[in-house]
Amino acid sequence: MTNPKAAMLVIGDEILSGRTRDANMHHLAGKLTEIGVDLAEVRVVGDDRDVIVDAVQSLSDRYATVFTSGGIGPTHDDITADCMAAAFGQTIDVRDDARAILQAHYDKAGTELNAARLRMARIPEKAVLIENPVSAAPGFTIGNVHVMAGVPSVFQAMVESVLPGLTGGAPLHSKTYTVHRGEGDIAGPLGQIAQERPELSIGSYPFQRDGRYGSNIVVRGTDETVIAAAIADLQTALG
Amino acid sequence: MTNPKAAMLVIGDEILSGRTRDANMHHLAGKLTEIGVDLAEVRVVGDDRDVIVDAVQSLSDRYATVFTSGGIGPTHDDITADCMAAAFGQTIDVRDDARAILQAHYDKAGTELNAARLRMARIPEKAVLIENPVSAAPGFTIGNVHVMAGVPSVFQAMVESVLPGLTGGAPLHSKTYTVHRGEGDIAGPLGQIAQERPELSIGSYPFQRDGRYGSNIVVRGTDETVIAAAIADLQTALG
Repeated sequence: MTNPKAAMLVIGDEILSGRTRDANMHHLAGKLTEIGVDLAEVRVVGDDRDVIVDAVQSLSDRYATVFTSGGIGPTHDDITADCMAAAFGQTIDVRDDARAILQAHYDKAGTELNAARLRMARIPEKAVLIENPVSAAPGFTIGNVHVMAGVPSVFQAMVESVLPGLTGGAPLHSKTYTVHRGEGDIAGPLGQIAQERPELSIGSYPFQRDGRYGSNIVVRGTDETVIAAAIADLQTALG
Repeated sequence: MTNPKAAMLVIGDEILSGRTRDANMHHLAGKLTEIGVDLAEVRVVGDDRDVIVDAVQSLSDRYATVFTSGGIGPTHDDITADCMAAAFGQTIDVRDDARAILQAHYDKAGTELNAARLRMARIPEKAVLIENPVSAAPGFTIGNVHVMAGVPSVFQAMVESVLPGLTGGAPLHSKTYTVHRGEGDIAGPLGQIAQERPELSIGSYPFQRDGRYGSNIVVRGTDETVIAAAIADLQTALG
C-alpha cells in the first residue's frame, strides 16, 4: 500500500492516569481510513513540555501528516500551543485573527474575554487557524501538524474542518468474514490465502461469545474485486 | 513525583484502521495508577516488524517497565513474539514449558494441538512465561517488557498475573471537584492554586452538559491531607 501515512499525538495526563478513556484516536482512525490515509502510529504522552516537543518533532519528521489532540484550552495545564511553537522554532503570542474570533464569540454570549480565555488566542506566528464551529477557540496547523482540541465534540468538528484539505490515497475497502471456529483451527488455510494475496491485508480477530470461539477475518485492500475473490477463497477453505 | 515510570505498546492494525477500539490502555492505566506506577507514554503501532522492534527498543531503554498487548495468537499476523526476540537479540522456538501448558489445555478440551496452535508456544529463549488463566496460551516477560495478549479478557488476566511482581511507588490518590462554570472563568484562580502546590498534579477537564459548561478539576498526589487542603482552597476560590 502506498497511501500517505499519518500519525497522531494524544496529549493529556488524564488519559495516562486512566481517569479518561480516549475517544479521539478511534474517531480519527475511522475517518482517515475512509479517505485513504493510513494512520501508522499513535503516541499518548502527558502534560510534559519536553516529552511533547520531542514526540511531535519525531512524528513530524517521520510521517506526512500529524494530528494532535488535547491541551489547547485556557487553563494552566494547557501547554500544547507553546510546545508546538517550540518544536517548530516559531514565536508565539496572542494573535489578532484568533482574538477577533474569540471576541465575537464571547460578545455574542455576553461573556467577558478575560486573560484566561485570551490564552486560547496564543497561536504560533506562522500557523494557520483551524475552524472550531463548536466553541470558537481555534485549532491550528503548523508545518505538517494539525493541532486540535481534546474534548471529543470539538475534536470531531476540527477533524471535519481539516479533512477536505488532506490528500488521500485510494480509499481502503474492507470485508469481514466471520468463522465460528477457533483461530487455531483456521490459521493454516488462512495464512496460505494471505500469502497468495500480498496486495491485501488479511487480519484475524478472535472472539469468545456465549462460550463459543470464533474469529472475524477482515480483508482490506483498495480493489473490491480482489477482496471479493479472497472472501470466496475463505468460504471455500473454511466454510 | 518519583514513582517508577512505565510505557505501553499496543500492537495491531485493527486499532489503527479504526476497526477495533482499544480497551487495554485504559484498563492498564487504571491498574498502574492504583499501585503507584506512572504510565508515562503509550504507543500504538501496526503489524509491521521493523516498527514494532524499533518501538519496543526505544520504550524499553527509556522506561523502567514496558507492557505490550496484541499479536501473540496463532495466525500469520501474530508476529509479536518474533519481534521481541529480535529486539532483545534472543533466539526463538517452540519451548517445552509452553508446549506442555498448551498440550494439557487442548487435551482437556479434546482439541488437537496443531501446527497453528503450536505457534503460541514459540517463546524467546530467556523469557519468563506469564500465566494465562483464560485461554492457557502464555504471555512472557523478556528483559523489562511484559508481552501480553490483545483480547481484553486475556490481557486483563495477564495483567493480574504480572502486577504482584511490580514495585510500585506511593499510590496516587485523586479527588475531583466539579465546578459548573466554564474553564475560562476559573482558569485564573485555578492556575494560582496549582502554582502554590507544586507537589500535586491539578488538571482541569471541561465538559458541556445540557447546554451548560463546567469543569472537573482533578487533584492528584500521594498525600491525602495535602489533596484535601487543595480541594478546600478550590472551594474557597471557586465555590
